[in-house]
Amino acid sequence: MNRQKSSYKPLSENSAIALAVRLNLFPAGSDLHCREIGDGNLNLVFHIADKSSDKGFIIKQALPYAKVVGESWPLSLDRARIESSALQKQAETVPALVPRVYYTDDSLAVTVMEDLSHLKISRTGLIGGENYPLLSEHIGEFLAKTLFYSSDFALEPSAKKELVKKFTNPDLCKITEDLVFTDPFFDHDTNDFEEELRADVEALWADTELKLETAKLKRKFLTEADALIHGDLHTGSIFASDTETKVIDPEFAYVGPLGFDIGQFIGNLLLNSLSKPSQEQESLFQHIDTTWEVFQREFSKSWERDSLEVFTRTEGYLQHVLTKAFEDAVGFAGCEIIRRTIGLAHVADLDGIADKNRRIQAKQQALALGTALIKERTSITQTKQLRSYFAQVAAS
Amino acid sequence: MNRQKSSYKPLSENSAIALAVRLNLFPAGSDLHCREIGDGNLNLVFHIADKSSDKGFIIKQALPYAKVVGESWPLSLDRARIESSALQKQAETVPALVPRVYYTDDSLAVTVMEDLSHLKISRTGLIGGENYPLLSEHIGEFLAKTLFYSSDFALEPSAKKELVKKFTNPDLCKITEDLVFTDPFFDHDTNDFEEELRADVEALWADTELKLETAKLKRKFLTEADALIHGDLHTGSIFASDTETKVIDPEFAYVGPLGFDIGQFIGNLLLNSLSKPSQEQESLFQHIDTTWEVFQREFSKSWERDSLEVFTRTEGYLQHVLTKAFEDAVGFAGCEIIRRTIGLAHVADLDGIADKNRRIQAKQQALALGTALIKERTSITQTKQLRSYFAQVAAS
Repeated sequence: MNRQKSSYKPLSENSAIALAVRLNLFPAGSDLHCREIGDGNLNLVFHIADKSSDKGFIIKQALPYAKVVGESWPLSLDRARIESSALQKQAETVPALVPRVYYTDDSLAVTVMEDLSHLKISRTGLIGGENYPLLSEHIGEFLAKTLFYSSDFALEPSAKKELVKKFTNPDLCKITEDLVFTDPFFDHDTNDFEEELRADVEALWADTELKLETAKLKRKFLTEADALIHGDLHTGSIFASDTETKVIDPEFAYVGPLGFDIGQFIGNLLLNSLSKPSQEQESLFQHIDTTWEVFQREFSKSWERDSLEVFTRTEGYLQHVLTKAFEDAVGFAGCEIIRRTIGLAHVADLDGIADKNRRIQAKQQALALGTALIKERTSITQTKQLRSYFAQVAAS
Repeated sequence: MNRQKSSYKPLSENSAIALAVRLNLFPAGSDLHCREIGDGNLNLVFHIADKSSDKGFIIKQALPYAKVVGESWPLSLDRARIESSALQKQAETVPALVPRVYYTDDSLAVTVMEDLSHLKISRTGLIGGENYPLLSEHIGEFLAKTLFYSSDFALEPSAKKELVKKFTNPDLCKITEDLVFTDPFFDHDTNDFEEELRADVEALWADTELKLETAKLKRKFLTEADALIHGDLHTGSIFASDTETKVIDPEFAYVGPLGFDIGQFIGNLLLNSLSKPSQEQESLFQHIDTTWEVFQREFSKSWERDSLEVFTRTEGYLQHVLTKAFEDAVGFAGCEIIRRTIGLAHVADLDGIADKNRRIQAKQQALALGTALIKERTSITQTKQLRSYFAQVAAS
C-alpha cells in the first residue's frame, strides 16, 4: 500500500479515472467508465469499472464539510484516515466481513476499495422485505472479533494505548455526542419531528429519570475506552445479500464502550420492526437473538483462547463483562431509537411509512420503546425480553 | 519557559550548576552550592542554592531506568514531559498546591522547579506523629479541582480528547497495572512479604470473589478516561507543613478514573492508621472525612458554576457521579493497602513497626481491611463507615 503526499483537491470523474490508471488498478488499455454515486453530503464516491469486464473499484474521498438538510458545516478530512485504518484493522480479524482496501492517501482523503455493488444496503433490503438469513450470524461475529481483539483483554497495554491515540476522532464523536446523546433530549433546533408528536416529545424532554439515565450512557460514550468500535453500525452501514455481509463506513471509529455497536445494530433492527406488520416482526427479533448469541459465543471463544489479561481466568469475570456490555447495549439501542425518530437524522424505516396515522403511531411507539430500554436496561438481561417490551408499547 | 533541543545525558552536580547559570536562575556572581538529594532509583534530584541567601531551586532529571530492590529495568524518559506537563496543568487550577515549574527540557528530561525543602514529606511526618491540620482540606481541594477541570464536565470534548493523547503514559501505567492491580493477587515473584504472612497471602490468592472484584477495578484503571489524575497520590508524594501542602511527582499522570487518586490517598491514611495506637487513629479518620467532604463540596461548586456539559443540570446526575467516584475510591484504597503490604513497593508506616509481632499483626489487619474495602465497596457510602471496618479488622 502506497501513501503519497499531495495536497487536497476534490476528485472529478476524470481525475478519479486518472488516479485509477496511475495506480495500475486495471490492465493497460482498459476502457474505463466512472460514475459518482455518493449522496454528496459527506463524501464523493466514484465507481470505476472496465467496460469490457465486471471488474470495478470504489474510490471514496472525504469532503471537507458535512451537508445535512441543507446546512453545511466543516468536518475534518482526518476521518478518511480513520475510516481506512479501521477497515484495515477490522480486516485483521474479520476479513470476509469488510470491503478490502487497496490504496489510501490521507492527504487526498482518498481510499480505494472493493466494489460491493452486487450487494444491497441492508436497511433498504429489510424495508423491502428481504430477510438476509446470515446477517445476524455475520454481525455477531464482526462484533465479537473486532471488539475482543482491540480490547485490553487481548492487547498488550501499550498497544491498546497506541490504538486509543491513533483512533482519536473528535469531530465524528462530537456528532454522536450531540445528535444521539444530547439534542433529542432537549428542545434543540437540530431536532426534527411531526407536529403530531409534540406532546410525546415534550413529555420526553420533561422526563428527568430518562435524562439522568441518558446522561450516564453519554458519559460511557465519552469516557469508557473498551475497544475499537465501528461507531455507526446501523443497517445503512451494512451491505448484504443472502450469503454475504460487508460492514462499511467506519469513519466514526474510536476506542469506546463495548456495548455501543451492539446497541446501535439492535436499535436499528427494532426500528425496522416498528415499521412492519406484526407477523413480519418475529424474523427481526430472531436476528436480534442471533446477534447476541453469536456475539457471546465468539467473544467467549476468543476470551478462552487469546486473552493476555491474567484476570480473564478468574471465575465470573467473563460473565460480568458480557452482562455489562448487554446492559449498556440495551441503553444505547434506546438512544438510537429515540434520536432516529425525533433527532436530526431519521431512518427510512419509519419516515417511509406512507400512511400518516400509522407513521405517527409507529413513531410514538418508538419513543416509548426507546424510553423503556434506557430506563429499564438493568432489568433486561436477555434478548427474548425485548419482545415483551415491544409488545407493551405496541399495545399502548 | 524555554524548551531547547539537546540530547540526553545525566547531569552531574557541576553540570547542574552550569545549567542553573545558563538559565540565569541566580544573580550573576552568586556563589552556588549543589547537592544531589534523590534516592537514585528513578530520578536525579539536584538542590542548588546560593550560599549567601535562602534562595534555591530543584533540578529534577529522569533516569532512563528504574531501580527497585537491586533490579533495574528501562523506563521511558517521556515521564519527565508527563510530570512537568501535569504540574503545569495542575497549576492552572490549584497553583498554591503544586511546586512551581520554571523551566523544562524534554530531551534532557529535566524540570527546574520550586525548592520545597522547608517542607517535609507527609508520610515521614505522619509516621513521626505530626498531624498537618490542613492536609486533608488541601488535598480535597486538589482532588476536586484537578479532576473536575480536566473532565468532560468542564472541557470541550475535543480538548478532553487532546488531553487523553497528551497524557498517554504506557510505561508508568504499566507499573500500576502490574504492581497495584495484578501481581499481589497472584503468586508472582515481584511480591515481597514476611514468611509469617504466607497463610494470609495464600488465602488471598485463593479468594475468587476478591480477584473478580479486583479485576473490575483494574478494568476501570485501564479503560475509564474520566479526568487527568495524579496517578500516584500517596503520602510520600505530598510535601507538608502545618500551613502548606504541595503535591509533587505526578509522573504517573494520565486520564483515568475519578476515584483513583482519592482512593490512593485514603488508602495511605489507613495504612498510617494501622501503624498507630488506637488513640492516635481518630485524627487520621478525620483527615479521611475532611478529604471527602472538601472534595464533594468543591467538586459540586465547580459543577454548578463551570460545567459545559448540559446534562450537569439534570437532577441526580451530580450525586450519581459522586457516588460512583466514592465507591471506586474505596475499592482502589483496598488495592493500595494490599499492594503496599505484600507487593513490591512497601510503605515505611508498616515496615517501620519495630516489634515484629505487632508488625505482622498490622499487616494481617491491612490484608483483611484491603480485602473488605474491595469486596464491600458498594456497601460503603460514607467515610464514617470506614471506622467500623477498621475496628472489625483490628478486633479479629
